[in-house]
Amino acid sequence: MGWRADGAAGTLRRASLERRDLRPDDIAVRVDYCGVCHTDLHAVRAHSGAPLVPGHEFTGVVTETGSEVTRFRAGDPVAVGNIVDSCGACAMCRAGQENFCHEFPTLTYGGTDRHDGSATLGGYSREYVVRDRFAYPLPVSLDPAAAAPLLCAGITVWEPLHTLGAGPGARVAVAGLGGLGHLAIKLAVALGAETTAISRSADKAGDARRLGAHDLIVSTDADRMAAARDRFDVVIDTISAPHDLGPYLRLVAMDGTLSHVGHLGEVTVQVMDLLVGRKKLSSAGSGGRAATAALLDFCAEHGIGADIELLPSARVNEALDRLGRNDVRYRFVLDLADLDAAP
Amino acid sequence: MGWRADGAAGTLRRASLERRDLRPDDIAVRVDYCGVCHTDLHAVRAHSGAPLVPGHEFTGVVTETGSEVTRFRAGDPVAVGNIVDSCGACAMCRAGQENFCHEFPTLTYGGTDRHDGSATLGGYSREYVVRDRFAYPLPVSLDPAAAAPLLCAGITVWEPLHTLGAGPGARVAVAGLGGLGHLAIKLAVALGAETTAISRSADKAGDARRLGAHDLIVSTDADRMAAARDRFDVVIDTISAPHDLGPYLRLVAMDGTLSHVGHLGEVTVQVMDLLVGRKKLSSAGSGGRAATAALLDFCAEHGIGADIELLPSARVNEALDRLGRNDVRYRFVLDLADLDAAP
Repeated sequence: MGWRADGAAGTLRRASLERRDLRPDDIAVRVDYCGVCHTDLHAVRAHSGAPLVPGHEFTGVVTETGSEVTRFRAGDPVAVGNIVDSCGACAMCRAGQENFCHEFPTLTYGGTDRHDGSATLGGYSREYVVRDRFAYPLPVSLDPAAAAPLLCAGITVWEPLHTLGAGPGARVAVAGLGGLGHLAIKLAVALGAETTAISRSADKAGDARRLGAHDLIVSTDADRMAAARDRFDVVIDTISAPHDLGPYLRLVAMDGTLSHVGHLGEVTVQVMDLLVGRKKLSSAGSGGRAATAALLDFCAEHGIGADIELLPSARVNEALDRLGRNDVRYRFVLDLADLDAAP
Repeated sequence: MGWRADGAAGTLRRASLERRDLRPDDIAVRVDYCGVCHTDLHAVRAHSGAPLVPGHEFTGVVTETGSEVTRFRAGDPVAVGNIVDSCGACAMCRAGQENFCHEFPTLTYGGTDRHDGSATLGGYSREYVVRDRFAYPLPVSLDPAAAAPLLCAGITVWEPLHTLGAGPGARVAVAGLGGLGHLAIKLAVALGAETTAISRSADKAGDARRLGAHDLIVSTDADRMAAARDRFDVVIDTISAPHDLGPYLRLVAMDGTLSHVGHLGEVTVQVMDLLVGRKKLSSAGSGGRAATAALLDFCAEHGIGADIELLPSARVNEALDRLGRNDVRYRFVLDLADLDAAP
């Protein structure tokens, strides 16, 4: 059972789904909680007929294991992110960055299985079958609903924070206070960085502080933005709509980096905004297996989960609608248990 | 005497120029050699009536010193680059990055003098008056004509090579084999990096090897470009016209950087080209006083100058025309001595 796109209408409908029989290195997962990512919204809106079941950040419980699986047993809590396979042989896979696999990793939904060529269907469903290498033991101290968004939103901001040196002594700013942004703040604070939230709305100041941010800058306050010029070693830009990167690049300190994680497509920058101060632009999305496992351990140690609004999965279309209006603090998570009942 | 833009015609004409009386911290320079930079060409083509004498990479001899000058004496060989003053007080100036001065540095031409408000006129002239802090002793072992382009083209590529770690063990590619590119190859090789030239034309292979490059990739050779994917820690993109950065970003190794130094304006990148491999985009232009002095020392030690075509300054318009067609190997330098003769 799951929620499948229904062509022109741009909505999801309950449908019966087939999952493959377990291969020797597969596990079957009962999906309990699945986060609602902007990517899901884009996919549903752009849907043109191919089979589509969104969902690529979910947690659940192992129900069955393939004959060669040793890492999991039935009953284990487990988490799955946005990639479910990769070639395993290229330089990126060997470096533990399966998300950059030269043959392109198999996406959790909208991808093509490397073995049988079938279309992958995502975690807005009650069952998932996944190669065991791409499932992660879920630490028992984490709330499984709040942990689900760690698998996409979390790892996407963890990678740049981690690789760009967010930690004690580093000054980090997080632009955009949504699903990615609120987790970036929590993670940067836990990493020990001096952390500033940047938001369009002053009314998020309380939230920012509650998330642990040491400061909030309202992006429409020209004086504050000017005073913060060249201040941050790392700026994580999580704003989900295309926008002018100039104001955020100007906040980056000399030799610092703006990591743009809010959307795909293209970005345009003024060369002078990079040149003056020798600044760098980077991007991030998803993460490799090792980093994902490290993130889950870090979150368990620091008690970090997403701030979520938990909805029964039958309200998935409402969740997508509201996400499209940025009306969520800060991540919708679907509770898939309602799929056990008859429709 | 100098070469001044003549409005609509887009050409330069010989003209008599006024230089200011020396202030206590000024020196007067007899300009012997001035390189012809793409910026000069853009300035002449865009000229709209304001006083314009191009030229911001020149060498010469000190002819007179202000009352407080101790670093120079008349007769000293000297070099001047593209900035001639800065506030001296902001964080960037204090960090030795006067080129990033928060009040914007005073440009060698097309700028405004910080003291008397006059328009700065550049080095396509026989005399220049400059604050002594922004003139550099020219090492006597350097050919002063071949050294002139070091002051703009050279420092522009030196900064990214130096700060991005070009050296033994690093794999560096230089895209575009022009004024900047040929110096980037020489400098990268001298720094000890494994250096590859990337050019549109296979007929530059001999030149690339003569400059010291260990390899040449022809950018239209799709197989070679594909085989070089993710290969280089640093790619210096010196291509002077707007172009798709994607093919060059794909050459960058995981966590490596593409430094775009070929032109100002804006650049557009596909987020996926940055995201996959966690690559960075940066830019560079000019340099601070400390780096400029370090570059001149390095070039003296390694015997590095530009490969130039030396022309009497009366042929400046021909030089600009040919530069506009990329018909130069690899930098035009004007010999200003002809300005001593009557027109």
